[in-house]
Amino acid sequence: MKLDKLVGERFKEKPTDCVIESHTLMMRGGYMKDVTKGIYSQYMPLKRICRKIEEIIREEMDAIDGQEVLFPVALPASLWDESGRYESVGSELLRFSDRNGTKMVLGMTHEEAAVHLVRDYARSYNCYPFMIYQIQTKFRDEARPRAGLIRVREFTMKDAYSFHTSQEDLERYYKICYNAYNRIFARAGIPDVVTVASDSGMMGGSLSHEYMLLTPVGEDSIATCGSCDYRANMEAAESIVENEKDSADEELTKVYTPNIHTIEEICDFLKTPLEKSCKAVVYQKNATDDFVIIFIRGDLDVNETKLTNHLSEEIHPAVITADCGLNAGYIGPVNLNVTGNYTVIYDKSLQGTNNLSCGANEEEYHYTGLCMERDIPDAAYIDVAKIKDGGICPVCGKKTITISRGIEVGNIFQLGTKYTESMNMQYLDAEGNSHYPIMGCYGIGVGRLAASVCEVHHDEFGPIWPISIAPWQVHLCCLRVDDEATKAYADSLYRELQKQHIEVIYDDRKARPGVMFSDADLLGIPIRLIVSPRNMGESVVELINRDKSIQKKVAMADIVETVKKLIADMMEELEP
Amino acid sequence: MKLDKLVGERFKEKPTDCVIESHTLMMRGGYMKDVTKGIYSQYMPLKRICRKIEEIIREEMDAIDGQEVLFPVALPASLWDESGRYESVGSELLRFSDRNGTKMVLGMTHEEAAVHLVRDYARSYNCYPFMIYQIQTKFRDEARPRAGLIRVREFTMKDAYSFHTSQEDLERYYKICYNAYNRIFARAGIPDVVTVASDSGMMGGSLSHEYMLLTPVGEDSIATCGSCDYRANMEAAESIVENEKDSADEELTKVYTPNIHTIEEICDFLKTPLEKSCKAVVYQKNATDDFVIIFIRGDLDVNETKLTNHLSEEIHPAVITADCGLNAGYIGPVNLNVTGNYTVIYDKSLQGTNNLSCGANEEEYHYTGLCMERDIPDAAYIDVAKIKDGGICPVCGKKTITISRGIEVGNIFQLGTKYTESMNMQYLDAEGNSHYPIMGCYGIGVGRLAASVCEVHHDEFGPIWPISIAPWQVHLCCLRVDDEATKAYADSLYRELQKQHIEVIYDDRKARPGVMFSDADLLGIPIRLIVSPRNMGESVVELINRDKSIQKKVAMADIVETVKKLIADMMEELEP
Repeated sequence: MKLDKLVGERFKEKPTDCVIESHTLMMRGGYMKDVTKGIYSQYMPLKRICRKIEEIIREEMDAIDGQEVLFPVALPASLWDESGRYESVGSELLRFSDRNGTKMVLGMTHEEAAVHLVRDYARSYNCYPFMIYQIQTKFRDEARPRAGLIRVREFTMKDAYSFHTSQEDLERYYKICYNAYNRIFARAGIPDVVTVASDSGMMGGSLSHEYMLLTPVGEDSIATCGSCDYRANMEAAESIVENEKDSADEELTKVYTPNIHTIEEICDFLKTPLEKSCKAVVYQKNATDDFVIIFIRGDLDVNETKLTNHLSEEIHPAVITADCGLNAGYIGPVNLNVTGNYTVIYDKSLQGTNNLSCGANEEEYHYTGLCMERDIPDAAYIDVAKIKDGGICPVCGKKTITISRGIEVGNIFQLGTKYTESMNMQYLDAEGNSHYPIMGCYGIGVGRLAASVCEVHHDEFGPIWPISIAPWQVHLCCLRVDDEATKAYADSLYRELQKQHIEVIYDDRKARPGVMFSDADLLGIPIRLIVSPRNMGESVVELINRDKSIQKKVAMADIVETVKKLIADMMEELEP
Repeated sequence: MKLDKLVGERFKEKPTDCVIESHTLMMRGGYMKDVTKGIYSQYMPLKRICRKIEEIIREEMDAIDGQEVLFPVALPASLWDESGRYESVGSELLRFSDRNGTKMVLGMTHEEAAVHLVRDYARSYNCYPFMIYQIQTKFRDEARPRAGLIRVREFTMKDAYSFHTSQEDLERYYKICYNAYNRIFARAGIPDVVTVASDSGMMGGSLSHEYMLLTPVGEDSIATCGSCDYRANMEAAESIVENEKDSADEELTKVYTPNIHTIEEICDFLKTPLEKSCKAVVYQKNATDDFVIIFIRGDLDVNETKLTNHLSEEIHPAVITADCGLNAGYIGPVNLNVTGNYTVIYDKSLQGTNNLSCGANEEEYHYTGLCMERDIPDAAYIDVAKIKDGGICPVCGKKTITISRGIEVGNIFQLGTKYTESMNMQYLDAEGNSHYPIMGCYGIGVGRLAASVCEVHHDEFGPIWPISIAPWQVHLCCLRVDDEATKAYADSLYRELQKQHIEVIYDDRKARPGVMFSDADLLGIPIRLIVSPRNMGESVVELINRDKSIQKKVAMADIVETVKKLIADMMEELEP
């Protein structure tokens, strides 16, 4: 490929809407272009990166007996009705009607389609286990697409579905998949992903893992124990607190607290620590707008995922109106008064505590001396708190939790029989008895993986692509194309590299070296070759790695072999 | 791959809704499964066929300097508004709204997306010419999906778009693409496709060609001249007729014709040939339901594509109600009476003719002696007739037209500046003047091509896949897996073939040879190897081609090399 005909714009200015480096560099380097919010077209360099990632994924899936299939993008709503998800999934599921008024959806995940494809086939235990996968376009109508390819609405994803006759067999295969995923990330150039236990969310099922690339720009928070192996997505991490109780209960006392609206302000005012307060956090159910009031220790925050799972309903932060009965800024558990239906939840952090401050449900008044057991004797306590930095590890019990940020680059779920039962997929065992098969599912977003690799491998000038997924392997620059001998040699080197099946992008523009090199930096090709009159004089070609780890002059006679060997070595290095 | 774990059902019975062989065999062979009308999931064998076809297409597109890109499936309506197609395209364009109420469409073709991707980049003549292509899922909400993969609603398509600074350059590249298409079809195993001039339809532009696979099951009709090179889609073929006029005009005479409703009946009754009659065909405009009445010579039919192009409006066959003024069965050009707005069109076949029979616009009455010039002096004549078998060739003028049927396996269009003008894509020439670039576009449906190959290459037992696109290259059958030595040898042969990078599907089921061979026929793998105790006794492996052109015994020692050479030879044969 000649660079002067490569379609796409390369430019210096950082686009204003880019908040992370991979997005900035991919926009600046002519990798992608916005079509509408969260939807991009891909230029050739990104398309080539994605195809190489897809090929790595395909090889690893085939190696663990995966069968590549293809499900439709547009699916009939009736299929999602069978599993119950047509109703239960929120507006990220795009629903529409076809020309005949038949209800349909755009596939955001394909459990239903997978069960549909195999439920007539896999009626005997003999057929099991098996795994099918596809690499296909998906659509998820995200409310807040952001960060370039990290959170988009349309994306290419590998999704795999395995079917088993026992939980043991699922677990056996789950481990195999787990290892295949580690190989995929290593081969793509990010061996350092970590796995964390996660919440299964709308997928259902019990056990699941996310593969996280730890990076400060990630949108997920991960709780890691510094003392044991515990790692979990904050959404799934259990919050353990030591509830301390003063030896003597104080009286419940109403205090005049003018202009004090937050739990921080009341603790300041009373000169007590946040731990001695009871904070109210208020949501509303999406379906009914009924209020959900959570009381939690003042220093903790509500984990909305845990709350949603507990309620089995979607929620949103409450809009507190004048007539709803709630006194914003003064909400507390004693004498709580709400118009209409509502739910009250007490977080475990309050269980057995005393002498707390809290709202008095009256304008400009708080209570002090709240004793949970005495004042709210009927409270039931559940865990809806976010785990904290410095918090207690749910496994080893030490106060060694740290919170880091990461990008979820893949996930694996043990689904159980959620879909096979609801969609009535059954098989007969050797004795002729019917059972529902047990499923696992396994996803990797191709574009997000490309962006994640870029997050880890870049400098201020552009991406530094690992050779395994680089759009080309070699970037050949011919400086001074006006020099006939130089141009002739560069042309012949281009042809020779191509003949050796080396992927070359060739810059033979009449351009200044600075322009050439900054374009080369943006394309991020691992091996750069420079042909110039000066190098010709020494009968050498300059070879420079994109990360500058190699910078040397190679005799013209040896350059093709040197490059071939270097490519092989670089590929070898990525092998796990 | 072991056959006993291949996901998918194979069965003997022809599904009732299958009207063509490729559909029947692909359903019976476990290639695909209905999800909803015109939407299928693909099992592994079909997915592999499609991937191989995609790879052939990709190689040929890359060889003519195509740059692979990716456009979204879900596109904002605003982009289609720019070209005017959001309004002009019918309900095959699936329109929907996202969660924010933004209007969107599912891409059925990507001219708008292509212009959007490159219009900021290609502002200088230096950038031209270039071609971008994608291989991506498309959705076309067909009213009548049919014939399996031939006419579906969701499909994978390669669509390419080229951009030029002159019509000459477009024509130069158009020829290159034309040849690349011929290579693609030859490599996929159907070298006998023909190209026909076609109507550009909703794509716009002037010149276009369709690649047709001639087969009686095709849904397109093609007019071919037996005397010259003329070939055209019936939709585009000009109808030439010799209009004969009797020397003496008869009187226009009203005739009582009870129970006579069709033009055939009136000609029978009057004992005149169909050519001496004037037939009425009535449509309504989709937008307004206004009537469109076409008068045409009794032996000819209306070409709806020509009619739609002439009207620049979508139409449908008329529903004639009691109060519309029209007398169904008795409609004629004299004293025509219609309630509301209407359009009358006279086909060229009537120009200058006389002594015709026609309806009298009165229940149970017809006219005889209609003379067009005398009775309808103001008529303007246009060509809206279908070309006929035995009709006159528009090029050589001989009566040598034959009509055959075909499947459209690809198309190439010269689009001109329809999209670049409407979407305001401009470039500056060397003198600094602005121009709209000239576009070409080029499509191939991957699944339809797979089905077309199957139409040409099959027998009653299953498909006979060309080696270039077969799901596997070798089908290894081990008869009598209970015989230890036989099984051990078959296992080792399976491993050895795989080691040589030969794609093998291995049937080591405990099944009767009849079951094995009928499954093998349905999978249609070109080379079949049979390991059995009897063959073991002779130290041979049986090698049989799927089309039975080769049936021989090969010494066990030579089998791997023989297979390798045979694969290479078969691939070589497909090279154009």
